[in-house]
Amino acid sequence: MPGMPYQLLYWPSIPGRGEFVRLSLEAAGAEYVDVARGDEQRGMGVPALERILSSPQVARPPFACPVLVDGKLVIGQTAAILLYLGPRLGLVGASEADRLWTHQVQLTIADMVAEAHDTHHPIASGLYYEDQKKEALRRAEDFRKERLPKFMQWFETVLERNTRNGRAAFPHLVGGRLSYADLSLFQLVDGLRYAFPKATGRVLKKAPRVAALHAGVAGHKKLAAYFASERRLAFNEEGIFRRYRELDA
Amino acid sequence: MPGMPYQLLYWPSIPGRGEFVRLSLEAAGAEYVDVARGDEQRGMGVPALERILSSPQVARPPFACPVLVDGKLVIGQTAAILLYLGPRLGLVGASEADRLWTHQVQLTIADMVAEAHDTHHPIASGLYYEDQKKEALRRAEDFRKERLPKFMQWFETVLERNTRNGRAAFPHLVGGRLSYADLSLFQLVDGLRYAFPKATGRVLKKAPRVAALHAGVAGHKKLAAYFASERRLAFNEEGIFRRYRELDA
Repeated sequence: MPGMPYQLLYWPSIPGRGEFVRLSLEAAGAEYVDVARGDEQRGMGVPALERILSSPQVARPPFACPVLVDGKLVIGQTAAILLYLGPRLGLVGASEADRLWTHQVQLTIADMVAEAHDTHHPIASGLYYEDQKKEALRRAEDFRKERLPKFMQWFETVLERNTRNGRAAFPHLVGGRLSYADLSLFQLVDGLRYAFPKATGRVLKKAPRVAALHAGVAGHKKLAAYFASERRLAFNEEGIFRRYRELDA
Repeated sequence: MPGMPYQLLYWPSIPGRGEFVRLSLEAAGAEYVDVARGDEQRGMGVPALERILSSPQVARPPFACPVLVDGKLVIGQTAAILLYLGPRLGLVGASEADRLWTHQVQLTIADMVAEAHDTHHPIASGLYYEDQKKEALRRAEDFRKERLPKFMQWFETVLERNTRNGRAAFPHLVGGRLSYADLSLFQLVDGLRYAFPKATGRVLKKAPRVAALHAGVAGHKKLAAYFASERRLAFNEEGIFRRYRELDA
């Protein structure tokens, strides 16, 4: 990308799935334009995002945000974007086996993200939380008791079996260096701690490597600067990870 | 894979997510062993599957089935398996752009598969349908009215914008030849027609290219032979796509 910054298309008011892409771009110090958060007067903002999403000129239209535009390439699906960016940002190993495994972990993170979302929207994304609260209480209970421990134990096992983890400052999911999957697991854990502080706190006690990865990524030099900046959006009750006290226990 | 057949690990009684992998292997005429459907006396069957899934020796353990084993490589996540198999089976284009786009479509298919599953299990996978039937009625209604048309219209648009579709015998999602995404869309539509015959019938009338792709794949020579064989498992009420009359309309 000589001279041409990446364009990231995502809704401007929530971290959401866009944040998984942002973390990789920020950690690598890559140049990018966060289109929907730009100035409408300068042809950016939400209208620009909607224009690209609905344009009949896009031969290969993405189904939803986030979308990455790199020159002529328009890429949707968070995991596909990271598959593309990984090698370009130095956030994945060189071998096919490492790349596949990193991607596989990312896809499992994506599955858990979808399940975390459905705790507050088990019936329909188009309805308000208040209109599906009764169902949300049931689904969140299953999530806390069954899914959250199961997923976190799997991440812990992955970290435990990674033989390269003896030497690193904090555990990595794949090989001996930071990958986009590490950044995504950080974001997932961060969101879970926000949405389900009690349940996540309990589960992390039994997943010390996951907790250490979360702390390690938080201290990453470029990311620490990013987290302190205005570019980092706070979790809120319009996003994937929402803090509704009644859903935690 | 000189001499070594692929090993597919998936539950033996449902087509489920394993079928998306099977279709690609079958269409390409690849040699594979369907481990859990093999003879326990010969070291196969479900015990063999569970042994591989739970073995502490697997350095990179998959979270769930389906799993593909190719020599030393153990790959989980349906979309990651197809990403790996695509080039090896001649079921994806050669360029990075084609491969990414095919994968992006596959990931969107995977999203819809998960939503189709959640119509009958909106609260918890571990509970019976009967224990979440009330919630299922609500979720299935939203799926039929909002999600099913939205996804199918997107696939229709993808087929419509593929400029290479004038010449092929039936429409393809990517470029001028059959890809694993075409096979997956066939399977998705097949499952939806089984689970929601009324709603899917209506939606397909407005998505004639999707319907034509489904019919075209059904007539694929190697696949037609497969569909007529015992290897093809029928949809049933333990799988992802279930026919509960009360959920269709």
